[in-house]
Amino acid sequence: MVIIMQPDATEENIADVVKTIEGVGLEAKIMEGAQQKIVGVIGDKAKMASVAIGAMAGVESSVAISKSYKLASREFHPQSSIIDIDGVKIGGAEPVIMAGPCAVESREQILETAEFVKKSGAQFLRGGAYKPRTSPYSFQGLEVEGLKYLAEARERTGLKIITEVTTVEGIAPVAEYADVMQIGARNMQNFGLLKEVGRCGKPVMLKRGLSATIDEWLNAAEYIMNAGTTDVILCERGIRTYEVYTRNTLDLSAVAAVKHLSHLPIIVDPSHGTGRWRMIKPMALAAIAAGADGLMMEVHPNPAKAMSDGSQSLTEEHYFDLMESVRKLSKFMREENLNPIVH
Amino acid sequence: MVIIMQPDATEENIADVVKTIEGVGLEAKIMEGAQQKIVGVIGDKAKMASVAIGAMAGVESSVAISKSYKLASREFHPQSSIIDIDGVKIGGAEPVIMAGPCAVESREQILETAEFVKKSGAQFLRGGAYKPRTSPYSFQGLEVEGLKYLAEARERTGLKIITEVTTVEGIAPVAEYADVMQIGARNMQNFGLLKEVGRCGKPVMLKRGLSATIDEWLNAAEYIMNAGTTDVILCERGIRTYEVYTRNTLDLSAVAAVKHLSHLPIIVDPSHGTGRWRMIKPMALAAIAAGADGLMMEVHPNPAKAMSDGSQSLTEEHYFDLMESVRKLSKFMREENLNPIVH
Amino acid sequence: MVIIMQPDATEENIADVVKTIEGVGLEAKIMEGAQQKIVGVIGDKAKMASVAIGAMAGVESSVAISKSYKLASREFHPQSSIIDIDGVKIGGAEPVIMAGPCAVESREQILETAEFVKKSGAQFLRGGAYKPRTSPYSFQGLEVEGLKYLAEARERTGLKIITEVTTVEGIAPVAEYADVMQIGARNMQNFGLLKEVGRCGKPVMLKRGLSATIDEWLNAAEYIMNAGTTDVILCERGIRTYEVYTRNTLDLSAVAAVKHLSHLPIIVDPSHGTGRWRMIKPMALAAIAAGADGLMMEVHPNPAKAMSDGSQSLTEEHYFDLMESVRKLSKFMREENLNPIVH
Amino acid sequence: MVIIMQPDATEENIADVVKTIEGVGLEAKIMEGAQQKIVGVIGDKAKMASVAIGAMAGVESSVAISKSYKLASREFHPQSSIIDIDGVKIGGAEPVIMAGPCAVESREQILETAEFVKKSGAQFLRGGAYKPRTSPYSFQGLEVEGLKYLAEARERTGLKIITEVTTVEGIAPVAEYADVMQIGARNMQNFGLLKEVGRCGKPVMLKRGLSATIDEWLNAAEYIMNAGTTDVILCERGIRTYEVYTRNTLDLSAVAAVKHLSHLPIIVDPSHGTGRWRMIKPMALAAIAAGADGLMMEVHPNPAKAMSDGSQSLTEEHYFDLMESVRKLSKFMREENLNPIVH
Repeated sequence: MVIIMQPDATEENIADVVKTIEGVGLEAKIMEGAQQKIVGVIGDKAKMASVAIGAMAGVESSVAISKSYKLASREFHPQSSIIDIDGVKIGGAEPVIMAGPCAVESREQILETAEFVKKSGAQFLRGGAYKPRTSPYSFQGLEVEGLKYLAEARERTGLKIITEVTTVEGIAPVAEYADVMQIGARNMQNFGLLKEVGRCGKPVMLKRGLSATIDEWLNAAEYIMNAGTTDVILCERGIRTYEVYTRNTLDLSAVAAVKHLSHLPIIVDPSHGTGRWRMIKPMALAAIAAGADGLMMEVHPNPAKAMSDGSQSLTEEHYFDLMESVRKLSKFMREENLNPIVH
Repeated sequence: MVIIMQPDATEENIADVVKTIEGVGLEAKIMEGAQQKIVGVIGDKAKMASVAIGAMAGVESSVAISKSYKLASREFHPQSSIIDIDGVKIGGAEPVIMAGPCAVESREQILETAEFVKKSGAQFLRGGAYKPRTSPYSFQGLEVEGLKYLAEARERTGLKIITEVTTVEGIAPVAEYADVMQIGARNMQNFGLLKEVGRCGKPVMLKRGLSATIDEWLNAAEYIMNAGTTDVILCERGIRTYEVYTRNTLDLSAVAAVKHLSHLPIIVDPSHGTGRWRMIKPMALAAIAAGADGLMMEVHPNPAKAMSDGSQSLTEEHYFDLMESVRKLSKFMREENLNPIVH
Repeated sequence: MVIIMQPDATEENIADVVKTIEGVGLEAKIMEGAQQKIVGVIGDKAKMASVAIGAMAGVESSVAISKSYKLASREFHPQSSIIDIDGVKIGGAEPVIMAGPCAVESREQILETAEFVKKSGAQFLRGGAYKPRTSPYSFQGLEVEGLKYLAEARERTGLKIITEVTTVEGIAPVAEYADVMQIGARNMQNFGLLKEVGRCGKPVMLKRGLSATIDEWLNAAEYIMNAGTTDVILCERGIRTYEVYTRNTLDLSAVAAVKHLSHLPIIVDPSHGTGRWRMIKPMALAAIAAGADGLMMEVHPNPAKAMSDGSQSLTEEHYFDLMESVRKLSKFMREENLNPIVH
Repeated sequence: MVIIMQPDATEENIADVVKTIEGVGLEAKIMEGAQQKIVGVIGDKAKMASVAIGAMAGVESSVAISKSYKLASREFHPQSSIIDIDGVKIGGAEPVIMAGPCAVESREQILETAEFVKKSGAQFLRGGAYKPRTSPYSFQGLEVEGLKYLAEARERTGLKIITEVTTVEGIAPVAEYADVMQIGARNMQNFGLLKEVGRCGKPVMLKRGLSATIDEWLNAAEYIMNAGTTDVILCERGIRTYEVYTRNTLDLSAVAAVKHLSHLPIIVDPSHGTGRWRMIKPMALAAIAAGADGLMMEVHPNPAKAMSDGSQSLTEEHYFDLMESVRKLSKFMREENLNPIVH
């Protein structure tokens, strides 16, 4: 931590700050600049938590320097982690594809989608049985019934299942039926849930919060890892900005940031990240080119049949076209050794 | 909901969209503009949730028009709600003051602070027993022990207690000891927690999420109300923006927005909202002038004693000065009938 | 400037960084932390501009500590500046009110508005003769003709004139007719314009850019001051955030920030800041309570007459009600010595 | 435009709104929803500019539906534009590379860089002769002298020159020496500059503003095109968000958005977009995969020589490695017909 003193801070002010730092068992170093003095704090920054340094006389502000997370950091684990889900490797050479509907709506819908997803070459079926919705009056999911349909789809197709867990009570059933438990963006700092999910031990995919910094996201991963789970996968799904054309702004630079700061694999979700189907293909290809370890995508299997006259028959066509392009691109990058990541 | 068609949408595209809308039991109205056609959807928008309208051929985008929340809306309850906490009225003529430390650190600390807060004229003592912290290695609170110290402080001073609940398991102990349960910013869309807190029936103060829109915030209140609690208080605590000088950007216009859209009372927290002690007084006065129903503030009772040589002895002075100014201002506004809110 | 080294930076990396810093005539101080070493840079940070320090081996990142602006800073000029516009003092005890239409539309419109504004007790008439519009097809202003109408309104009412200058060519005519030249939000970093306006010598009101930090804003003021003008007024007009309910998010904490960092007066514009007429009164009162030196507001004199049947007859009523409340509040704050600003 | 009425709007309110719309020569259509009535406005929305519809009794808000820009829109020009700069095609099959230093610092520096850039296979040399800097005390560029060095570099290498124009007075010299004039992010809504640059007729590259929406950006392009220039290139360079790890958040979805909404080519600048050299390669590859028409990058030719002991000798290596990867990727995408853009 670096403490920046006000330009008119007195010698006494600085002495008080130094005394306070030393009082919690840390070392202080004074640096005199042209306009301002700064005081560096050396040692475990957790000790500073109880000190209201910003409220001390003569203090302008303070800047944190060191990271709070350890287990999630690349310093702790210099090799990139590869997470093995019963034979499907996340973080390895080949990108992993997770596809499926936003929510499990019916047995028929999820079984049909699963066939479709399997055929496309994806490894994971996604689909929410518990849905965190902005309004209490929106569909909240089929819950355990939905989980059972997912398990049935796994049996039929061999796809792995990834589905969201939204509450501590939901951990047991989700852990029973899913291969990977997903923590959604709105729960990224639901620390109670993170701790319990971490205790459970099952692999977890942690989505980035709607306006989470990279640092907060890795600290959230640290909560899960500190509770006992080493198999954590990150998922960039777009951040909240002022732009209204897209639902979120997909931050692909997060891939490079995570690869630099952490050893954990990172998946990109261009569906939530953009909110517009036309953007899913370009952003999926861009994610692969940027070095993402996989993609998570929403697929609408056949909305046409249910509701209207085939106006959406292109959807299947678009998805298979996208998957073919993704496969080609990732194969080419591996063969040509086009590694985007600079450590 | 209004659906905006692409400029080159065909008659068939529009017919498909209309058919889809009618297929879920809603009415569609076509409006032909100079460049584009739009289709208005009339009826309960929840029925649209299952339709992937944005993926249909010829559709450019859609705009939601009606609100999702009902119980929290002013249409549902035209009179401003006054919440009575055992004689202390929130949402009435006088602003309510909630003050105390960020976290309950020890019995001595909280009892000392309570005396201090009582003397200042505040009605509520705040202090976290369960702390949601960015890092798992930061102090997580004294939990039930902290709640007991708060209860003891109430007995001694008569102050009401407001403290945060962060997990479903924490609801029972917090409800036992607190007068108002607080939902923190990071849990604003922890829907499982909102539902359970709502079932509990105790008054709840719901802080605005770090990057929550007003609409999402009122929908989160709706979760609590829909589960059975009518006593919901909102708390604006700053939103996340690009500005780095302040910790958050305190959005005081949220006071006017909430007063227009909802009947619920709204409190302002200038401590978290700015992150800088110098800004607490101007923002506290501004909040009162804007029509807020109260203030929540962090008070450091006497950090000097514990750690350093009195460099912070101004803190107490600053807080009492602030409280005197707030009292004068709010009295003046009542006497002069200076009502900032325009319905 | 503080340079944060990567955890695995070598002794050689650090030696290179120190050598580079010393190579541009600055002093380097090394500080060894638990996880990371940091290097402090002492001296004029402008010298660092030519060094790509962030690209050096072993460097993680760098943090600027000292401010770039001097003339605008409170250290340079500890007393708050009071700017005297021919007898109207901006930054003194009484808040200054600037009101008028968005754009000068006709001679009749501006003369009528001026009467109305004068009657309300405001000191300045605002109105754009040159309009920076998002679309080239929107009305771009009456230009010199508009300036002449403003001057005529001044003659009739005694109001001072503030109007926007958008181009270097526009400086001469605007300076001829206006008492204060306004730089709009979109031109806050139009440095060519800032320099020329600064050379002109006339008082300038500088609006905060749509997403400008406080630091960038004060640096923009520095451009004007460095070119020769000391009479600079700042105007907070809302910043761009993710919130869509309001047009912008009015950042009232900017008032306290500017008062702490600078000696320049600051005006608040709740009209652009909120984009909703219902919010203008609460935000105007809040601005005064926060210590703003004045208000700028858009007034629609009598839209009813021109276009519809009196549905807006409340507008005049609202404005006069607002002005009465502002006057009462500011008088009370002066009399009670309710100074919100903590230096 | 769609006007949303308040839930308690009266029949008279609606009649007034309709009358106002018809009063400016437009057509109004009323749509009655479950909770609210909305009024659609049909015809040229520019006519609505003079009406303060939001201030009318019973009006809740209004939403713009149609676009303001025409010449920049894909509807106006369905084929993607290819801009031919003396044989170098921007918007064609092959991506165009623009590389060079941030600023022209000396004749030697720019000539040396030009050799280096030429050798890498780039088509354009970039380098600022006029620098818009946050602080007036930072280096402001070599101006005309810098332009002459750029021209000399072109003569020696055959590279095209792109350089920024920051003022109306600067247009003539920049147009004389440059092949493409660049408008920087801070001037994106400097409408006076846009109009004059548009009149000049030279090709222009328009960077996206720091917090500009896609819609505002295309409207800024419209200013240039409406003034007479058809050769406009867009450049995404990152937008301002809350994230502090990166300098800006590079919005690659803007590539797909621009390709859908407009016929103009779009270049991506991963240097400014991330502010971190390690992220330039992954973001450059991602941009190509997303369908960008080219890249603009900052190259530090040999900082080592000037200042330190070779700690940056990797820079040249990194740049050439990046260029090789970009070339391979773009060749592969062309050969495999991997078109990311879905119209």
